[in-house]
Amino acid sequence: MKIKNNLILAMDIMELQKAEKVCETIGNQIDTIKIGYPLTLAEGIKTIKIFKENYNYQIICDYKVADIPATNSKIAEQTFKNGADGIITHGFVGEDSVKACQDKADEYNKDLFLLTEMSHPGAKRFLQKDADEIAKMGVEMGIKNYVAPATRINRLKEIREIVGKDSFIISPGVGKQGGEAKKTLEYANAIIVGRSIYESENPKKATEDIIKSTK
Amino acid sequence: MKIKNNLILAMDIMELQKAEKVCETIGNQIDTIKIGYPLTLAEGIKTIKIFKENYNYQIICDYKVADIPATNSKIAEQTFKNGADGIITHGFVGEDSVKACQDKADEYNKDLFLLTEMSHPGAKRFLQKDADEIAKMGVEMGIKNYVAPATRINRLKEIREIVGKDSFIISPGVGKQGGEAKKTLEYANAIIVGRSIYESENPKKATEDIIKSTK
Repeated sequence: MKIKNNLILAMDIMELQKAEKVCETIGNQIDTIKIGYPLTLAEGIKTIKIFKENYNYQIICDYKVADIPATNSKIAEQTFKNGADGIITHGFVGEDSVKACQDKADEYNKDLFLLTEMSHPGAKRFLQKDADEIAKMGVEMGIKNYVAPATRINRLKEIREIVGKDSFIISPGVGKQGGEAKKTLEYANAIIVGRSIYESENPKKATEDIIKSTK
Repeated sequence: MKIKNNLILAMDIMELQKAEKVCETIGNQIDTIKIGYPLTLAEGIKTIKIFKENYNYQIICDYKVADIPATNSKIAEQTFKNGADGIITHGFVGEDSVKACQDKADEYNKDLFLLTEMSHPGAKRFLQKDADEIAKMGVEMGIKNYVAPATRINRLKEIREIVGKDSFIISPGVGKQGGEAKKTLEYANAIIVGRSIYESENPKKATEDIIKSTK
């Protein structure tokens, strides 16, 4: 996936109208947004098409898919059928579940992103100890796209070492959660920023400032 | 949660119209259904209200919620606001993420179900080794409702021992996946059956037969 200015906007807003206002303000400084289940549940999966048609954005659906293979396949089917360009799936549910999403991504010629790790405090107890193995599983499976957090830069570096220089890493946690944009882009291909943009009084300037800070 | 005939129908159908036809056929032999993201994405979250209003069913949303606390909270908010009686959340994302759903369930006076384990082949690599610890975390957190699979009865028994006799366990995997209804109900409070009912030529009779087999 090519991502303009290496910046993805995490549109973690529950109302489509507010989200669209942010899009209108930012304009074409970005070309990719990430949406999750909160907005999808609140406004319906039609939101994907609305962002695509009205703003010409690429859409990554951060659904952190984590079910059995048959259900993962149905979730990915719905997601791609409704226009998504990428889907984020959890790795801890295992290879068969991830492969179900990978197969759907291949069928639609779209992108699967494997989530290797999370950085909220609760992730320490179970998820973090498996992060390297999840990344290795992705490499074994031929997965090219990964999600790894910007909040602990050493971990991001380690994940990059596992998935290799040709893999594509997108990295959330820049901004309010403490990750630094420029530093993160040493190891990630694109940063994901949410509140620092959409909670800003001037989302256009906030976006410009973030882009400048990465140069 | 009280569940009629200790039987939950897993409505893993992608079209609301087909799902409603199954409901009409089965009638009041059951009072609880489980829906997932495939149907919700295909038909919108309004499906919850439709099942409740048209058939007076309790709805458990099997969204296997697995995000950071702030996002889990928003997902649970949307789910309960739209009428769900219960939500299923993953445990491996850690205590804070689960607590975000638990707090929303408490706020709406509805039920949180903690998923401790899955039984598809891929679950062996990461998830199964943490299953007991996830169940123990649930007990520490005062969670009363659990999801544990019927396909490996010894494991179900072990999860029951961890969560205690007063906890409420619902158990998927009965029927096409191999779990036995009566045996499962020795350790679980309710079984979850999908394809054996909705793929049956006579869903009403299939439901009756399952209920009989549990007596």
